[in-house]
Amino acid sequence: MKIAVDAMGGDHAPKAIVLGVLEVSEDYPDVEFQLFGDATQIQPLVQNKSNIQVIHAEEKIEGHDIPVQAVRKKKKASMVLASRAVKEGEADALISAGNTGALLAASLLIIGRMQGIERPALMTTLPTLDEARQGFDFLDIGANAESKPEHLHQYGILGSYYAKNVRNIARPRVALLNNGTEASKGTPVHQKAYERLQNEVGIHFIGNVEARDLLMGVADVVVTDGFTGNAVLKAMEGTALSVMKTLKQSILNEGTKGKLGALLLKPAFQSLKDELDYTDHGGAVLIGVQAPVLKMHGSSQAHTVAQALKQVIHILNSRVIEAYDDVFTYKEEKVQEKADALFEDVVKVQGKSQEK
Amino acid sequence: MKIAVDAMGGDHAPKAIVLGVLEVSEDYPDVEFQLFGDATQIQPLVQNKSNIQVIHAEEKIEGHDIPVQAVRKKKKASMVLASRAVKEGEADALISAGNTGALLAASLLIIGRMQGIERPALMTTLPTLDEARQGFDFLDIGANAESKPEHLHQYGILGSYYAKNVRNIARPRVALLNNGTEASKGTPVHQKAYERLQNEVGIHFIGNVEARDLLMGVADVVVTDGFTGNAVLKAMEGTALSVMKTLKQSILNEGTKGKLGALLLKPAFQSLKDELDYTDHGGAVLIGVQAPVLKMHGSSQAHTVAQALKQVIHILNSRVIEAYDDVFTYKEEKVQEKADALFEDVVKVQGKSQEK
Repeated sequence: MKIAVDAMGGDHAPKAIVLGVLEVSEDYPDVEFQLFGDATQIQPLVQNKSNIQVIHAEEKIEGHDIPVQAVRKKKKASMVLASRAVKEGEADALISAGNTGALLAASLLIIGRMQGIERPALMTTLPTLDEARQGFDFLDIGANAESKPEHLHQYGILGSYYAKNVRNIARPRVALLNNGTEASKGTPVHQKAYERLQNEVGIHFIGNVEARDLLMGVADVVVTDGFTGNAVLKAMEGTALSVMKTLKQSILNEGTKGKLGALLLKPAFQSLKDELDYTDHGGAVLIGVQAPVLKMHGSSQAHTVAQALKQVIHILNSRVIEAYDDVFTYKEEKVQEKADALFEDVVKVQGKSQEK
Repeated sequence: MKIAVDAMGGDHAPKAIVLGVLEVSEDYPDVEFQLFGDATQIQPLVQNKSNIQVIHAEEKIEGHDIPVQAVRKKKKASMVLASRAVKEGEADALISAGNTGALLAASLLIIGRMQGIERPALMTTLPTLDEARQGFDFLDIGANAESKPEHLHQYGILGSYYAKNVRNIARPRVALLNNGTEASKGTPVHQKAYERLQNEVGIHFIGNVEARDLLMGVADVVVTDGFTGNAVLKAMEGTALSVMKTLKQSILNEGTKGKLGALLLKPAFQSLKDELDYTDHGGAVLIGVQAPVLKMHGSSQAHTVAQALKQVIHILNSRVIEAYDDVFTYKEEKVQEKADALFEDVVKVQGKSQEK
């Protein structure tokens, strides 16, 4: 197993990236970590590790670069070289904390989409606060600003197979995010997506869910367009942070009594903070491309990088990409069969009309 | 000042509605409260109050009724009669805890839109947790599932005048909810809305804001389409509730030490709960119709009804509807002027071409 690591992406690159790799590399001696980036900076940090390879990249893509343009022009950028390694079979997965738009562009233009998938989606696994604490997969959280019903349909399948293969949930409950539970809710896009998901035999669709219930574990996979997904994800993050911050402030305002209370409650606060801590939940997966691509937060420190690497190894071990291939190739065949049947009908009809 | 109250809408109607009116009526002897609904149920609760009038309605609109159909067919429903009273100048404002869709339909079909407004929006004032604690007006939170750039533009104006006139914010900061701060972010609808808001001289547009920052008071008015607004609002509500609930559970799990801590922190918890308590912030305003229309939550109890009534009285006193009339009539005149000028040009050109 080989993982291509863009060592130059993110606020703390290359150091945090390299330290994250070092943290994981000892536990996974059979995995080869390929660090793409400025060798003069990276090599001294790595020294001689048998399962870490440093591949020099002359350029890097910056946070402010225009995605598609950067991927096309900076042919020697660490992200581009790492993507190419995956495309050419030199590596099995790609991981980066760099420019999200550029990572999307590199994945689409270089690695390529999976057969049958029109628009890969960004997906993250969020924690839930119900008793089962099973979390849910949320997609699309921002790869595409707009979605058609067929994209939401595909996200349902992609998410369901991920939940099943990677998270070992036997029969994942797939839901559509909407502004009410009735099938008639939302825009025409939601109504059509509902119908498609409802008719999809390959997944267990449980209908619409509202954003209010997401953290309470109402579904294992929640499908939405990238604009709404991004807004809802940020609203949840922001609210959790604001509530904790305000509570902390209120406690401090209570004087000695409050401080004593806070001291006694420290373990409870810490446990909630841990559960909501996204850095412990790895990164966002770009799902629908031909190899696992993981996007880490730009501010990722070594520990988050290590968690994300473990997530990639776990995804590769789950063989979910192969599972997708089976599903979507099957679907493509079905479409082809239908097209063939239709063609035959047309030929027949034409034949008949010629006979007349 | 006369307020038409739909006494039959909501889970606890008519009792909670009537009790809410009673709570407020003593403090506002000059306001006339018109209770529309089943007189046999309402009259005994009211007894003889000089500023409360009971107007019998034979029918009521139920939560499961299909909105437009219900408004058209149930001509004697409390909500329909109350709307008609506003239309005919018998009342100055409408308030209901009933079927949201039906209230929208009754407002549009009976009361009518303000001149120049294509799509009225539902707006709520949410609390913020920053130091100023000024709150922000959030619209549209669900009147329309889809919005065009011109609708978002109008929401900016409607929200800004509300913040200025009703909430007394001298120069309200108006923002567009988007998935990034750059002008190029979002769908083409967001990009065009940004441009329109940017060019609108009547408001102080500060650009895009992200859902993550809403509770921290980044803007006084936040504009979005009804689908995203609804999802983000519910995500914030759900997250705040889940976080508080989980923290409470974690505290209980800590045993005696936790319980003691919780006891010491009770005032801090209570103060946060009060700040996030939407029942204290009145209802959602349907903005863009010819009179103030207030939608209370279906589960509203007497206290919430009283708060909502105070909000309506405050809105009427602020004369914001008259302010809107000035703005949008002015805009209509400008459009008319342009149309006239264009017409004159056309006439001139045609004249010239005829001269040839």
